[in-house]
Amino acid sequence: MPSPRAGGGAADPITTLVNRLSRLPGVGERTAQRLAFHLLRAPLEEAQALSQAILDVRTRVRLCERCCNFTESSPCATCLNARRDPTLLCVVESPQDVQAIEITGEFNGLYHVLHGVIAPLEGIGPEALKFKELLDRVAQHPVQEVIAAMNPSVEGEATALYLKRLLSPLGIAVSRIASGLPMGSHLEYADKVTIGRSIAGRRPL
Amino acid sequence: MPSPRAGGGAADPITTLVNRLSRLPGVGERTAQRLAFHLLRAPLEEAQALSQAILDVRTRVRLCERCCNFTESSPCATCLNARRDPTLLCVVESPQDVQAIEITGEFNGLYHVLHGVIAPLEGIGPEALKFKELLDRVAQHPVQEVIAAMNPSVEGEATALYLKRLLSPLGIAVSRIASGLPMGSHLEYADKVTIGRSIAGRRPL
Repeated sequence: MPSPRAGGGAADPITTLVNRLSRLPGVGERTAQRLAFHLLRAPLEEAQALSQAILDVRTRVRLCERCCNFTESSPCATCLNARRDPTLLCVVESPQDVQAIEITGEFNGLYHVLHGVIAPLEGIGPEALKFKELLDRVAQHPVQEVIAAMNPSVEGEATALYLKRLLSPLGIAVSRIASGLPMGSHLEYADKVTIGRSIAGRRPL
Repeated sequence: MPSPRAGGGAADPITTLVNRLSRLPGVGERTAQRLAFHLLRAPLEEAQALSQAILDVRTRVRLCERCCNFTESSPCATCLNARRDPTLLCVVESPQDVQAIEITGEFNGLYHVLHGVIAPLEGIGPEALKFKELLDRVAQHPVQEVIAAMNPSVEGEATALYLKRLLSPLGIAVSRIASGLPMGSHLEYADKVTIGRSIAGRRPL
């Protein structure tokens, strides 16, 4: 948009930066402009550091050969941590999910990141995910239980079932994270699927 | 947040990128994480292009020596445009305001960007803005009217009055953009200051 103003037509640096920022998820034209003008006014070091951080993340980060999480060194620190239980594997959709679980401090096993869920409508089959790596892994490591921690969605459930069909024949127990009312919520405002799940999944007190 | 996961403590590239992105205006920790993981997964060229665009905007863009707008070449294309009226100057707070006015196609004069408004409470006095450049400019160029197009805010009004005191003694007419109800709005929902302004600024039909 700043084309004639910044003096160089389509190739002017402000327009280019706005266009590039607009490609980021959740960043519209307006936000992209605001960010671009911020970067124009910010201390030079701040802009340079952001530019470098973007490059670094691509040159220094890769996938862990075991858990397929993002890491600088493979196998990653979590996979190499001798104090974690190697018989218990938590399978998640994304690296962000690993973070979310780690923050709770409730899980002491290892992870496996699928990098997605099975979604036939979007053309994502099992072969597009890290199932092969998972099979190689359970063949080499003493995994006894796998927790299917995909999100509670249609695709998440389908992926969990696929996981069960894949691993049960190998003698590995497959469990699914509990689905129900979140802490602090109200029955009154919960959707019917969530309420149904929380009743079906009730536990003795 | 991804610190132990990505394998390198405080200096790990994902955490660094998340921290850097968090410094952008309107970008919180969560959004920064989403953007960082997007950049990790996006095509390498996309990440590289964004990184380069950030550097380019800082190395190739500077302020126009006349209007103080961002430009690649100084004086900027707008200032050098012989078809624009050099006797009419629109003084605005920011380069974004120039864009907003240009899009309307309603203004054919030149611009002057103050890069802010007088805001004593934030320690921003006239000397921090581009008033000196404005005085130099009106001394060298045949400016007859200056439109004070600062935003309708306390600081905007104060800056407009300062502009009038500065330029009136030089025989330059200073006008203020009209303030009132925006097009498509409803009297019923407008704030009282806006309604007051729109009545005080009424024009004969």
